[in-house]
Amino acid sequence: MDNPVLDRRSGLLESGALDIVRAGQRMDARGWVPATAGNISCRLADGRIAITRSGCHKGFLNPQDVITVDETGRPHDPAHRPSAETLLHCQVYRRMPDVGAVLHGHSVASTVLSMIEQSNALILRDYEVQKVFDGQTTHDATVTVPLFANDQDIARLAGEVEPHFGSMPAGYIIRGHGVYVWGRDMAQALARLEGLEFLLACLLQRRTLEKGTPAP
Amino acid sequence: MDNPVLDRRSGLLESGALDIVRAGQRMDARGWVPATAGNISCRLADGRIAITRSGCHKGFLNPQDVITVDETGRPHDPAHRPSAETLLHCQVYRRMPDVGAVLHGHSVASTVLSMIEQSNALILRDYEVQKVFDGQTTHDATVTVPLFANDQDIARLAGEVEPHFGSMPAGYIIRGHGVYVWGRDMAQALARLEGLEFLLACLLQRRTLEKGTPAP
Amino acid sequence: MDNPVLDRRSGLLESGALDIVRAGQRMDARGWVPATAGNISCRLADGRIAITRSGCHKGFLNPQDVITVDETGRPHDPAHRPSAETLLHCQVYRRMPDVGAVLHGHSVASTVLSMIEQSNALILRDYEVQKVFDGQTTHDATVTVPLFANDQDIARLAGEVEPHFGSMPAGYIIRGHGVYVWGRDMAQALARLEGLEFLLACLLQRRTLEKGTPAP
Amino acid sequence: MDNPVLDRRSGLLESGALDIVRAGQRMDARGWVPATAGNISCRLADGRIAITRSGCHKGFLNPQDVITVDETGRPHDPAHRPSAETLLHCQVYRRMPDVGAVLHGHSVASTVLSMIEQSNALILRDYEVQKVFDGQTTHDATVTVPLFANDQDIARLAGEVEPHFGSMPAGYIIRGHGVYVWGRDMAQALARLEGLEFLLACLLQRRTLEKGTPAP
Repeated sequence: MDNPVLDRRSGLLESGALDIVRAGQRMDARGWVPATAGNISCRLADGRIAITRSGCHKGFLNPQDVITVDETGRPHDPAHRPSAETLLHCQVYRRMPDVGAVLHGHSVASTVLSMIEQSNALILRDYEVQKVFDGQTTHDATVTVPLFANDQDIARLAGEVEPHFGSMPAGYIIRGHGVYVWGRDMAQALARLEGLEFLLACLLQRRTLEKGTPAP
Repeated sequence: MDNPVLDRRSGLLESGALDIVRAGQRMDARGWVPATAGNISCRLADGRIAITRSGCHKGFLNPQDVITVDETGRPHDPAHRPSAETLLHCQVYRRMPDVGAVLHGHSVASTVLSMIEQSNALILRDYEVQKVFDGQTTHDATVTVPLFANDQDIARLAGEVEPHFGSMPAGYIIRGHGVYVWGRDMAQALARLEGLEFLLACLLQRRTLEKGTPAP
Repeated sequence: MDNPVLDRRSGLLESGALDIVRAGQRMDARGWVPATAGNISCRLADGRIAITRSGCHKGFLNPQDVITVDETGRPHDPAHRPSAETLLHCQVYRRMPDVGAVLHGHSVASTVLSMIEQSNALILRDYEVQKVFDGQTTHDATVTVPLFANDQDIARLAGEVEPHFGSMPAGYIIRGHGVYVWGRDMAQALARLEGLEFLLACLLQRRTLEKGTPAP
Repeated sequence: MDNPVLDRRSGLLESGALDIVRAGQRMDARGWVPATAGNISCRLADGRIAITRSGCHKGFLNPQDVITVDETGRPHDPAHRPSAETLLHCQVYRRMPDVGAVLHGHSVASTVLSMIEQSNALILRDYEVQKVFDGQTTHDATVTVPLFANDQDIARLAGEVEPHFGSMPAGYIIRGHGVYVWGRDMAQALARLEGLEFLLACLLQRRTLEKGTPAP
C-alpha cells in the first residue's frame, strides 16, 4: 500500500462510509429506516459517490455496505449491486453541484400524509423550523414539498422529478414511499431531514385535530 | 469438554441464543415486548429449535433463558418448561423448511387494529415497504394479513392458522394478542417484523385521520 | 465496620437501592417519570421499606436518593424527608404481605384517560397482556382498574383506596396524577407496570378511533 | 496559566458548558431540538451568561459551541456570533435574578397547540405535575402559559413578553416556534421543561379525543 493515489481514494471512502454508517444509526433511532428501507449517500472529494448497497438494514451498516458509483449510477466495482434508487441520488448530485449528501428515509408521517393528500404537494407555513431549509430566512413564508407518484421504474420517476429542481428547498416525497432530502454535507442533510420530519409530524397532528372541524 | 459432537451442539445453541438475546433487546427498544409478552426462536443447524422460555422479559434475556425443543415442541431437557405458544413457532418451522427464525411481538398498533377490524384480515397496498415481504416486488400489489381469534387453547389456534400457510407473505395476527412473523434467518425475520409494524402504524394513523370523513 | 448486624442492614439497603435506581432509569426511558414525578420503593428482607426521597428526578437517581421508612412511613433517620406519597406505598405493604415492590408513575395515557373517564374505573378485556396481572390466566376476562380523585391530603386519599384492596389485580389510578402498581419483587412490579401502560396506550388509541363512530 | 482570575473564569465556563452539552443531549433524546433548533444557557457564578452559539445541532454540542455574553447579549469575544434569540435568554436573567438556567425547545406538541389555539394562552389545571412549576403546591389550581406571535424581530418579541414576567410560572410559548422555560439551576430548568412538555402532550391528546364531542 505505497501508492499515494490509491491510498487517498481509500481514505476518502473510509471517511465517507463512516459518515454514512452514523447517519444510518441516527435515522434508525428515529424510526425512519424500517426493515431494509431507505438509502444514504455522500459525494467524496474526488467526485465519486459513496452510497449504501441494496438490501441491508440502514441502522446496522458496516463500512463494507457502502459502495461507490459515478454520477450516472454505475458502480466502480462491477461486482457491486447498487439499489435502483441510486439513480435518484445521482440525479440530485448532477443537478446540484454544491450538494454533498443525500438522504432517503421512510417515516410514518411522510408515508401517511403523501397517501392521503389529494393535491400534488404538501404546504408548510408559519413554522420557525422552516428556516433550516435552503434559502429560508423567516417563518413567514410558504415552503412547497412536491409529491410524486411511486413507480418501480426509477428512470421514469426521475423524469417526473427533474423539472422541479430549483423549487424544492425542503426536498421531495414519493407517495407511500418516503422523503428525499439533501445538504452541502452530511450534517446539513441530517438537520434538514430532521426539520422536514418534524414539520410533517406537526402537519399530521394538525390534520388529526382539524378533521371534522370547520376551517377557521 | 473433549466430546466434539457435544461441543458442536453447545456452540450452535450459544450462537442461536445470542441472536435471540439481541432480537429481544431490539424488540424491547421498539416497545413490542411489554411485560413478559412475546417470544423469539431460531432453527439451529442441527435441526433443534432454540426458543425463549416462559415468563421472562424479552428485553433482558440471558442465554440461560433460551431452551431447545424439537419440531413438535417437546423440550430436549425435561426440566425445561416451554411457553404454550412454542407450538405456534414449531408449526411455522414444520410447514416452511426454509424458515430459520420466528418472532412473536405485541405492539399497540397490532393489538388495536386487530380488535377493531370487523373483517378477518388487514389489507396493505401501495406501500413501498411491502417489498420486504416474501415474494413481493412492487408497491402496486395487495398483501393480506389474516386475523385469528385469540384462544388459550394453542393447539386449536394452530388448527385455525394451518390452512393459511402459503398465503401469508407478511405473517399473521392474533386478535388482542400480536403478530407472528418469520424469515430465512434472524436478520430477515427482524426486518419483516419492522416492515409489518411500520405498515400497521401507518394503517392506524390513516384510520384515525379518515374516521368520520366520507370515503374518497 | 465490624458490626455484622449493621453490615447486613447496610448491604440490604445497597441492594434495594440499586433495584430502585435501575427501575427509575427504565421508567424514565419510557417517559413515565417526567420532571420530579413518580416514586419507587421495595421491601427489604429485614422489613424496612426503601423508597425514593422527595423532589429528585427518578431517571437520574443516586443510591443516596433512597431512604428507609417503617410500615407507617416514618423515616429511620429523622433527618430524611419522605415524600407525602410514601403513605400510599406503605399502605400497599401493610395490606399485602407478599408484595416486595411498589411503583408510582405518570404517563400521558394514564393521565388523560383518568381525566376524561366519567365512571369510576377503566375496564380492560380481551387483551392477552392481561395475563401479567395478579391471578389472571386468560384474555377472556375483565380487569377493573379503579380511578380515585386526586387529593393533596394523602391520608384521606389512602382512606378512599383502602376498601378496594383485594379487587385491584392491575393496581389503581389517581386522576390527573398516575398509576400505582406492585409485585412480589421489582421485576414483577416493572412487568406489571409495563403491562398496564401498554393496555392504557391501547385503550387511548381505541377511544381516539372510536370517537364519533356509532358503537358496534 | 498561573493567573488565578483567568483560571477561575475558565473553570466556571467549562462547568457551565458541560451542563449545557448534557442538557442538549437530553432534549435531543426527547425530540425537542430538531435540526438546529433550540438554544440553552446558564448563568455562571461570575455573572456571565454561557449560551449555545448559532447554527449547531443541540444534541451534538461540543464545549466550543458554548460562548459567553453579558446581560445585554453582547459576546465577550467579539469573534463570537450569538443567535438572535440570545436576547430572550438575557431578558429572563435580567428580570429574574434567581434564575440560573434557561431552555428553549421545539416540540411537536408546543408547535401544534400554539398554532391552533385561538386565544392568547394555554390553560393547565387538575394535573399533579403542575406542582413542578414556580410556587405551585396543588393540582387544584390554574396555570396559564401565554402564547406570543412569532416575530423575526427578536427585540420586538421581547417587548411583547416583558409585561408578563411575574405571571408565567411555567414559562411561555412562541407560536409555531416553541417554549421558553427557566429554573434556579439546569436541573430545575430541565425538570420544568419536562413537566411542561408532558402537560402539553396531555393537552394535545385530550383535544384529539374531545374534538367533535360536546363539552361535558
